[in-house]
Amino acid sequence: MRSVGAFACLVVLTFVFAPVAKGENVTGPAVLPMPTSLVLGEGALPIDSHFTTNYAGCGDPRMQGALQRLAQRVANETGLPIRAAKAASVQNATLSIECSIAGKLVPSLGEDESYRLEVTPRGAKLTARSGTGALRGLETFAQLVVAGPESFYAPSLQIEDRPRFAWRGLMLDTSRHWIAVPVLERNLDAMAAVKLNVLHWHFSDDQGFRVQSKRYPKLHELGSDGSFYTRDDVRHIVSYAAERGIRVVPEIDVPGHASAILAAYPQLGASSGPYHVANGWGIFSPTLDPTNPKVYEFLDALFAEMAQLFPDSYFHVGGDEVQSSEWDSNHAIAEFKRSHGMQSATADPAGNIALHAYFNRRIVNVLRKYGKTAVGWEEILQPDISDDVVVQSWSGPQTLAEATRRHHPGLLSFGYYLDYLQPAATYYAVDPQGGVAAQVNGGQPKLVLGGEACMWSEFANSETLDSRVWPAAAAIAERFWSASSVTDRESMYQRLGSLSRKLEWVSLRHRANYGPMLDRIAGGQAEPALRVLADALEPRGVEREFLRTYTPATPLNRLVDAARPESELVRRLEGAATTLLATPGDSAAYAELELTFRQWEGNDSRLTAVLSNNFLLEGLDKFSADLSRIGNSGLRALHYVKTNEPAPEGWLTDELKNLDALDARKSELTLAASRPLRILISRLKERAGPNIE
Amino acid sequence: MRSVGAFACLVVLTFVFAPVAKGENVTGPAVLPMPTSLVLGEGALPIDSHFTTNYAGCGDPRMQGALQRLAQRVANETGLPIRAAKAASVQNATLSIECSIAGKLVPSLGEDESYRLEVTPRGAKLTARSGTGALRGLETFAQLVVAGPESFYAPSLQIEDRPRFAWRGLMLDTSRHWIAVPVLERNLDAMAAVKLNVLHWHFSDDQGFRVQSKRYPKLHELGSDGSFYTRDDVRHIVSYAAERGIRVVPEIDVPGHASAILAAYPQLGASSGPYHVANGWGIFSPTLDPTNPKVYEFLDALFAEMAQLFPDSYFHVGGDEVQSSEWDSNHAIAEFKRSHGMQSATADPAGNIALHAYFNRRIVNVLRKYGKTAVGWEEILQPDISDDVVVQSWSGPQTLAEATRRHHPGLLSFGYYLDYLQPAATYYAVDPQGGVAAQVNGGQPKLVLGGEACMWSEFANSETLDSRVWPAAAAIAERFWSASSVTDRESMYQRLGSLSRKLEWVSLRHRANYGPMLDRIAGGQAEPALRVLADALEPRGVEREFLRTYTPATPLNRLVDAARPESELVRRLEGAATTLLATPGDSAAYAELELTFRQWEGNDSRLTAVLSNNFLLEGLDKFSADLSRIGNSGLRALHYVKTNEPAPEGWLTDELKNLDALDARKSELTLAASRPLRILISRLKERAGPNIE
Repeated sequence: MRSVGAFACLVVLTFVFAPVAKGENVTGPAVLPMPTSLVLGEGALPIDSHFTTNYAGCGDPRMQGALQRLAQRVANETGLPIRAAKAASVQNATLSIECSIAGKLVPSLGEDESYRLEVTPRGAKLTARSGTGALRGLETFAQLVVAGPESFYAPSLQIEDRPRFAWRGLMLDTSRHWIAVPVLERNLDAMAAVKLNVLHWHFSDDQGFRVQSKRYPKLHELGSDGSFYTRDDVRHIVSYAAERGIRVVPEIDVPGHASAILAAYPQLGASSGPYHVANGWGIFSPTLDPTNPKVYEFLDALFAEMAQLFPDSYFHVGGDEVQSSEWDSNHAIAEFKRSHGMQSATADPAGNIALHAYFNRRIVNVLRKYGKTAVGWEEILQPDISDDVVVQSWSGPQTLAEATRRHHPGLLSFGYYLDYLQPAATYYAVDPQGGVAAQVNGGQPKLVLGGEACMWSEFANSETLDSRVWPAAAAIAERFWSASSVTDRESMYQRLGSLSRKLEWVSLRHRANYGPMLDRIAGGQAEPALRVLADALEPRGVEREFLRTYTPATPLNRLVDAARPESELVRRLEGAATTLLATPGDSAAYAELELTFRQWEGNDSRLTAVLSNNFLLEGLDKFSADLSRIGNSGLRALHYVKTNEPAPEGWLTDELKNLDALDARKSELTLAASRPLRILISRLKERAGPNIE
Repeated sequence: MRSVGAFACLVVLTFVFAPVAKGENVTGPAVLPMPTSLVLGEGALPIDSHFTTNYAGCGDPRMQGALQRLAQRVANETGLPIRAAKAASVQNATLSIECSIAGKLVPSLGEDESYRLEVTPRGAKLTARSGTGALRGLETFAQLVVAGPESFYAPSLQIEDRPRFAWRGLMLDTSRHWIAVPVLERNLDAMAAVKLNVLHWHFSDDQGFRVQSKRYPKLHELGSDGSFYTRDDVRHIVSYAAERGIRVVPEIDVPGHASAILAAYPQLGASSGPYHVANGWGIFSPTLDPTNPKVYEFLDALFAEMAQLFPDSYFHVGGDEVQSSEWDSNHAIAEFKRSHGMQSATADPAGNIALHAYFNRRIVNVLRKYGKTAVGWEEILQPDISDDVVVQSWSGPQTLAEATRRHHPGLLSFGYYLDYLQPAATYYAVDPQGGVAAQVNGGQPKLVLGGEACMWSEFANSETLDSRVWPAAAAIAERFWSASSVTDRESMYQRLGSLSRKLEWVSLRHRANYGPMLDRIAGGQAEPALRVLADALEPRGVEREFLRTYTPATPLNRLVDAARPESELVRRLEGAATTLLATPGDSAAYAELELTFRQWEGNDSRLTAVLSNNFLLEGLDKFSADLSRIGNSGLRALHYVKTNEPAPEGWLTDELKNLDALDARKSELTLAASRPLRILISRLKERAGPNIE
């Protein structure tokens, strides 16, 4: 047996692609998140269409469905005609499950999620204390099954596994764009696959209140464009999540981000209005009036209704980005603040922070009445707020440290904004207990419950959400689950590549929608040259809002919406460039670079006719021309690398300047293709360096 | 206005890709099937997210749903956020529909399917006599919408359209492999898109009886592996089809192909059994006993039950490939034939044809009792069979001529077997009223009702069916709908390429499943080299059964299952090779060929490591090596074409021999990549010809 613990990342990386035991051509498992410990054994368990499962002891009403889903998943992933696969007994099952405590239908914070998985050539055995732990182990098992030299198989191994953080969330903003129920379902399946356990459901914001309210029907009627989740939809999603061991924490964002609420009930606002559902992106002024007793009556009844729909014991009240303009210009509010002594001379001269604190204290108490603990964005961290309120840090890690210093449980979301479209490795490098988040101001890392990846949906809809969230969210999921020492990027990317493909089989469309969206953009005809360009581009997340006028009704159907946040092709070419520079004789790396550069070089002439004829492709001509230039320069750079002939220093300098200019270009898209070229040119420049003098 | 009638195919071909009117960069519509007449106008109707529809006069309960589907389709295809899009009135609608006769919920043979569609820059107007005609016109409209220089649009035009044949079917065999309900649904959507109007549902065969019977529950319980359509499933599919103007004709195949029926009710068989559901492919001996009165009681009650489930007035009784072995060895049957004078000395010495005829006459009468007209495979064409019985020709066109000579309505399926995986153009060239089908034996072409594309499912399951049926079935659909003069292959392929992509948006997975299946085969990792190989291969349809042992439980998860019947890449390269030879200076054609040959040349070395390690890839090493050789030879051929330097005659001869050997190789797969190389080498050989002497 070889021990491959979480503390030996390089060894883990090796086994992922190295032969297993006895030097046979059996590749190891691409498990993500990396388990606490994983020890490979000898041989493997073959998986064929007679695959069966059974369980004992769990008494968990979710187990039957989980095993059916597992059988279906294995059938999908392998193409084996596996049928309803319950073995006659635990002993006869290919995979047997035992758990020891009766399961709960609704998951809760802090339940035992540990499990142990043993695979031998004779069978697989999963043991867990709780049904939830068993659910986690089933997901690990599903990741083990791959095609080998003779059959599908799961490698012999022993896994012991438990999460580092108890709160591992994904926040989905379903207010700015409507996200259809099937999209939520498949994202829950994907969350379960990577052991995320909280769906933070942001359904109320300036652009729409999207859950049906029986008590206040105008909320969804006037506060949305007609797209909202019915109470049945909500119950369905909550139960769909619970079956997968995922909690659902609802968010009603108050007192700011309240345009939709106030469009429905303007009398609750801090100004005389008129109020409208926001028809654009940004931060808006409509704000509830914390001095109005009706506001608390309204929230009390609304929370009471929502508390019934959402069984989780946490409830998110938002609290972020409260704008002061309405409070400042309302005389009654000013008088209220004065009479309550809210203005402090220094930090809060207008008393708005104190007023927000007052508001929060009241609604936290309302929620407590319904058995709920409040969660809020970091702005909720104000004097006298109850210690149990969970603070979600978003603007910077220091706010998390500040929250824990002040004895609040904390969640980190700063660094995990998926809509920024960062590389997976960038998110991966952020640790909820690392760096500033832990160390400043006497922060107490132990109070960090975990974190949440956040997907704000200004630029995502039901068609594109998946590809904005996945697979990057899986890298964050590993950060939340695995030991803090698991930090090897290459290992993560290797496993992420495999996982990304496995997620196709839970019907996620992060890969599937790419081709049809490109076909649409190309006018519905075969256009391989457009795909070549798209594969070399990446969308930019942050700048987009400022480069073009967008409203919620703007279609998201251009290349910036189809292109994926991180080009797999470019990452492979970066690897090839690095390999080639380290090993100039590596013919595979050379061939891959040469072929791609050549393809890029000729691509612009192939694409020109298409580009001129189609409004969806407007503005892409310069990218296409630049890609061909990069291809041309790449071929020249390869020549110098291969021949060792010195490259002209002026040419190298010019090339680097060109690349800098490309990267600095203000645009919704960026030419990722520049990265492998930069690697080659930079090295040639280093080499050329000494020659200058 | 330019007239583009169906009788001017080359003009039609031109407009599909030439600028419309005034020389603007607006491309024309890729409508498939080609309408009876199409006249392009000036300008275009912009389509944006305010797209609306409304209708008047139809009184058709299907229209509301059809318009919702259209709005959803346009939203999907464009990415525009189109909402429930009913205009306040017909006058205000982007697309208005008027029909003049009250619609029927259940479509029937021969109803009026004609329509007229006019698009102007101000709006689109669809008129039809019947709601079914309007449904056909809506599908045409959906095909008009494309991205243009400024927006999505539908070009100004006038279309008059009506079908050539009234019976335009697709037969799906859901017995040999189970095909799940959602797969049937999406295939019905695709059928509607190309105006096919009959789903011939083959659910009873040796490998399974797959419709629930209340009267004879053992049929689905013992006659299937547990996968069957419930009565609710059937009702759902029938109504799903009817909403789209598609009839559903059920088939219960008797007296042969009856293993599943006899596994459930062995007492109906012509031997003492034992009978089993067939566990392999081929033709099996189990046969009903036509001399047993219980057989007619059984069929009477079964047909009565099924006649209620399937409202169409036609009912298919199979009748094909009846094996004589059980009848021959049963003494009571022999005695029956003797006593009924069934043995004729010459054509039918054993009297089995006469016995089958006797059986058919009886069951045709049973069906008539339930208001049904019988349809049968061509073997049903026997003496004294009632004239109204529809004969479906499958073994050769002469049987269709023979049927119509004998006054039977006929359907052609010979030449339309999709499971043969022929190129679309091969199917396209077969005409139900053309050649032998019409001319021999005094056949009466007017009695030809139409035809059916047939998908036998030995080698297709829920995952792969779509890619075996589509887009080839669309070429057949055009043959059934459009004028016989519409025969231009290039026009068909251009429009088929566009249609194939549009079918993605009705959730068909003929393209979508390709990538995930390849990823699965590659072991779940990125493997671009495997895609290069797969793009250059095509599966063979006919030989497969004889090259490997298959049962219904054999997984269909290898490259032969993922590869698509007709490589789009290879067809494009064939076009490039032809262009280059006609115009040696065509740099685009040269560049495309050179880049691809280069990619092929280096692909084997990229793929070797993957191939050795994975049972799903067994046997592909030789194809991979051959592909690289083709790439190498292709580059050499390009050199001779470009330089005009004469190619060595010996080399050309050897290359052609190699290509012949490749094509003759006994294998489930064929290297389509050989075709563009053969075009180049053949021409070089012609050129070299005179040099020899």
